[in-house]
Amino acid sequence: MRAVVLLSGGLDSYTAAAIAKRQRFTLFALTIHYGQRHAREIDAARAVARALGIERHLEMDLDLRAIGGSSLTSDLDVPRGRDLDAETIPSTYVPARNTIFLSLAVGWAEVLGAHDIVIGVNALDYSGYPDCRPEFIAAFERVANLGTRDGVEGARFRIHTPLISLGKADIIRRGAELGLDYGLTHSCYDPQANGRPCGACDSCRLRAKGFREAGMPDPLLLR
Amino acid sequence: MRAVVLLSGGLDSYTAAAIAKRQRFTLFALTIHYGQRHAREIDAARAVARALGIERHLEMDLDLRAIGGSSLTSDLDVPRGRDLDAETIPSTYVPARNTIFLSLAVGWAEVLGAHDIVIGVNALDYSGYPDCRPEFIAAFERVANLGTRDGVEGARFRIHTPLISLGKADIIRRGAELGLDYGLTHSCYDPQANGRPCGACDSCRLRAKGFREAGMPDPLLLR
Repeated sequence: MRAVVLLSGGLDSYTAAAIAKRQRFTLFALTIHYGQRHAREIDAARAVARALGIERHLEMDLDLRAIGGSSLTSDLDVPRGRDLDAETIPSTYVPARNTIFLSLAVGWAEVLGAHDIVIGVNALDYSGYPDCRPEFIAAFERVANLGTRDGVEGARFRIHTPLISLGKADIIRRGAELGLDYGLTHSCYDPQANGRPCGACDSCRLRAKGFREAGMPDPLLLR
Repeated sequence: MRAVVLLSGGLDSYTAAAIAKRQRFTLFALTIHYGQRHAREIDAARAVARALGIERHLEMDLDLRAIGGSSLTSDLDVPRGRDLDAETIPSTYVPARNTIFLSLAVGWAEVLGAHDIVIGVNALDYSGYPDCRPEFIAAFERVANLGTRDGVEGARFRIHTPLISLGKADIIRRGAELGLDYGLTHSCYDPQANGRPCGACDSCRLRAKGFREAGMPDPLLLR
């Protein structure tokens, strides 16, 4: 059975895709060039797609800098050293990003005859992002089923979120069991000119905390 | 108050925008270049935006030909002379198009501090398109409110569909009351090389039927 997986190049979407592959889905990966500051993650998405043996990897251009409103898609500074437990929504939130990405995934899935979409959202570490929460995913699933030909003709679209209730350390442990090479991934929101992670943004710090708690070294930092 | 209006260049979105303007919204128009066969409608969208005195007109590129699956975005033939009352979904359906477009509109709206989105969907003439039906719009509104910062922080996004239960003739009459110049619009799915409407696709025929029933000439055909 075919599934469309949103593949960013980060470790979450890599792990989510690997879990779906283990469930015997044939994977079609979708990566969006949205004008993200960390466009380096696209290279990582390609490497991850190769490692996973993806059936097809579609890259689409959609420049969300035209909209802006996020430190990932505008000149706003990416926060460093922020309190990760703060309940505010950080400036790295990209307005409606997961809604946009899931919409594209559903459109492509329909053309492929697929009704399964996989997304590596995580409500525990990213509770600040509204579009990573289970109630959003459930509401979007309903949209997919009401707003498509296949949906109204009786197919049932499902949005799979295998990581939604896992912490970063659990995700990393699961990936290690699956033999994933996290050295292929990229997490940093605001990499240095040489491509190395900054070490101070939320994404770097959540990653470091995850590897530390999982009791494993981050292969990216060993290179 | 600001509203984002999805403006295609057709007569429905022009009328929907004009109704929102009459309701004293300051309009921000969003037009998507999605690789549609009838890219000519983009010129119409620009003309309509000028006529409406839109505050800002944002054009975004998102090439849905990469996904395909529609006669508007692939080499499939656009149907001509189809039974307009048939209950099947025509090949001009573009997978998840309104979900994608509404997602982009919500993202932009959030950046603008707007929570009102206007879309010219019409469930009567376009009942074949699942993403023009009221239950889809209601479900999407819920997604907008659950998947955005403003939504979870208490703002209330609304998707306005002023035409949803109107027939084409009613829409045209309403536009005439508002003094709209439908000669600026473009409806044909598959225009001739000189830009003239084909006269035989669903969109041309619904338009012709609408003007006929409204008892008015179509200014586009008088040019």
